[in-house]
Amino acid sequence: MEPVRSRPVETAPVEIADHRRLVMSLAPEPAVVEMPLERCLGLVSARPLTARLAVPPFTNSAMDGFAVRLEDVRDATPGHPVRLPVAGDIPAGSPAAEPLEAGTAMRIMTGAPMPVGADAVVKVEQTDHAPGITSPPAEVAIFEAPEPGANVRRCGEDLQIGDPVLEAGRVLDGPCLAAAASVGHGLLAVRPTPRIGVISTGSELSGAGQELAAGSIPDSNGVLLAGLVADAGAVVTEQARVPDDPARLREVITGWDVDLVITAGGISAGAYEVVRQGLPELTFHKVAQQPGGPQGAGVVGATPVIALPGNPVSVYVSFHVYARPLIAALRGLAAEPPMVRAGAGAAWRSPAAKTQFMPVRWEDGTAVPVHRLGSKSHLVASLPLVEGLAVVPAGVDAVAPGDALDVLVTRGGIQ
Amino acid sequence: MEPVRSRPVETAPVEIADHRRLVMSLAPEPAVVEMPLERCLGLVSARPLTARLAVPPFTNSAMDGFAVRLEDVRDATPGHPVRLPVAGDIPAGSPAAEPLEAGTAMRIMTGAPMPVGADAVVKVEQTDHAPGITSPPAEVAIFEAPEPGANVRRCGEDLQIGDPVLEAGRVLDGPCLAAAASVGHGLLAVRPTPRIGVISTGSELSGAGQELAAGSIPDSNGVLLAGLVADAGAVVTEQARVPDDPARLREVITGWDVDLVITAGGISAGAYEVVRQGLPELTFHKVAQQPGGPQGAGVVGATPVIALPGNPVSVYVSFHVYARPLIAALRGLAAEPPMVRAGAGAAWRSPAAKTQFMPVRWEDGTAVPVHRLGSKSHLVASLPLVEGLAVVPAGVDAVAPGDALDVLVTRGGIQ
Repeated sequence: MEPVRSRPVETAPVEIADHRRLVMSLAPEPAVVEMPLERCLGLVSARPLTARLAVPPFTNSAMDGFAVRLEDVRDATPGHPVRLPVAGDIPAGSPAAEPLEAGTAMRIMTGAPMPVGADAVVKVEQTDHAPGITSPPAEVAIFEAPEPGANVRRCGEDLQIGDPVLEAGRVLDGPCLAAAASVGHGLLAVRPTPRIGVISTGSELSGAGQELAAGSIPDSNGVLLAGLVADAGAVVTEQARVPDDPARLREVITGWDVDLVITAGGISAGAYEVVRQGLPELTFHKVAQQPGGPQGAGVVGATPVIALPGNPVSVYVSFHVYARPLIAALRGLAAEPPMVRAGAGAAWRSPAAKTQFMPVRWEDGTAVPVHRLGSKSHLVASLPLVEGLAVVPAGVDAVAPGDALDVLVTRGGIQ
Repeated sequence: MEPVRSRPVETAPVEIADHRRLVMSLAPEPAVVEMPLERCLGLVSARPLTARLAVPPFTNSAMDGFAVRLEDVRDATPGHPVRLPVAGDIPAGSPAAEPLEAGTAMRIMTGAPMPVGADAVVKVEQTDHAPGITSPPAEVAIFEAPEPGANVRRCGEDLQIGDPVLEAGRVLDGPCLAAAASVGHGLLAVRPTPRIGVISTGSELSGAGQELAAGSIPDSNGVLLAGLVADAGAVVTEQARVPDDPARLREVITGWDVDLVITAGGISAGAYEVVRQGLPELTFHKVAQQPGGPQGAGVVGATPVIALPGNPVSVYVSFHVYARPLIAALRGLAAEPPMVRAGAGAAWRSPAAKTQFMPVRWEDGTAVPVHRLGSKSHLVASLPLVEGLAVVPAGVDAVAPGDALDVLVTRGGIQ
């Protein structure tokens, strides 16, 4: 009788923190580029911004009305209006008018510069002048004595030159860009958007909606990763579906000019592990987690590559645990995943030797597994329900309702 | 003495709900188009989706290993392995293999179709076969008796053909598209993305960073609205800055092919109200709110137009109260703004005759005004701090710490 070969020793799995460290080590210090402000929407500010203009940049009227000297209108009431000759008309956008002479008023529009000598603006509604008339009147009746400075916005009352406006590391949304424009910026120092290449691997994959040959399935990882990358604020500039052909995989990746490649599949214990075979310079290991145990990461040429397992739920989990923090770092943002503490809303089992990431949805503020079959890694159709990943630590083999857990928030907020 | 003209009667302001009704009446029933699934990211599903394929579509292996008949391996243990000849090799993506004959095993990869006759898959780690070897062995030693169905994913165990997968009215993210692809869809019925034209008006406006002429200020409303529109899930396809020239404004708008025009400025009580004068077919009125009282809305040609006031904080408030719900309706989504109930974290005053929308940020779960000057409408530099709008109802003239208020959430969630 032949000797039986010994059972292969399984390599001890690595810790989540160790794989995370490997992944994060792939992020270079992100570049800083200067871009016209109008093209910076969604980018991350690379430097703090201070005001280059005061806000408002000059003292101006907060209302459509008449600029006056207080002493001229002190006794105005609706019953005994004060009548003043109108010495000028100041539309918004006009340069500063002549000084306001005592005993006169000037018509002034919202945002127009206050004339020297004027103390306040009387709203048009507090005069006998009808709003919306193009020509100013020769004379105006003032019905109300304004407070000093009424309806006047003082130069710099909101911000002085040099005041801080925006911190570095902020995702630039409309309000940020509006603030930056208001304080005089036209170019902003930002981090360029990371360009991501996405590869789904496997000879069994067909395009969405294509007729399926026997043994084939639709590729869902490609659209899944493209969507997750967009949601993480990066842009998919290259995307491919590669069969179990290591040379082809290598050719695709080395032909791309991207900041990061994310692959799905081909890194497990099978005979046809296209990513393992095609990208031998990566580190591959098993991480003590479920799902998403097999993981790979490294650099091919000069391009960081992270290699996720192939099952869609494993892709989803691995993306949120590893790829999203890496993309955040590439963008110049803090990389910590958003965690909340919540109670379990159901009972489920967990493998004691591993950290479990259970896909959950919120139900009355508790975390409930999205699918009766739990964290099995192929339940792609339940992915749209997932709002978070409940983290069950190693050493725990069962979760009971009410147990407090950390939940990695993957969609919206807690509800 | 000349007779004094009577003080112009101010038209009574309209209610917020009335202006909201006018704005929402501008939304046509959104069209439904069929698009390739890969191009549907961020669009809204127009019809519920059901499964056209079962998930999994065929019974397949959940692991890399060996397909066996239970009766052949019932007594396998590490000390007394069962040795079976390997009758075949089934990679993922291959058509179904020949049936598994009694007394044999077949090597099988994750996702590959199970051969007829096989009851379970023994993971490669439970055999003497080393993982990652291209050629299958002639014979395999099995170290463990599997449970019936172990490591097998049954056809349809996740979803049966016809099962519901996605509701209508869902924003299609990566998980949604992955689910749709998995259940056999290649084209999806979606709402087209609304195309928005944005106009900032006023002769005083300069481009961001440009040298300012006397009386000029940088245009912040253009970038503000462009960012808010993008955040609302629509796309700015046209954008212009128009001086106080009603004919020019009209020419710009009538030259655009967009689904909605949003203007800022030129609708108040001044003499040069370019939007009022250029678009007389709109309805203009004062809404009983602060800030953002002046509002306009209507149709120019066949294009809905909403006319917001010109101060940036008024633009921000008006966008969230009126424009964002309209854009949601144009996308085929529910239009209700996201409201939460929260306590005030500070004291402030409110005009009793109007509903106040106070820009607030979260501080220890309470709503605190973002700026010491409160809801004044020109504090553009404070906009990046705003996380919500605290709604102070008409009839209330002061808010005290601890008062419960509705807060319209404009950024992130409550923190």
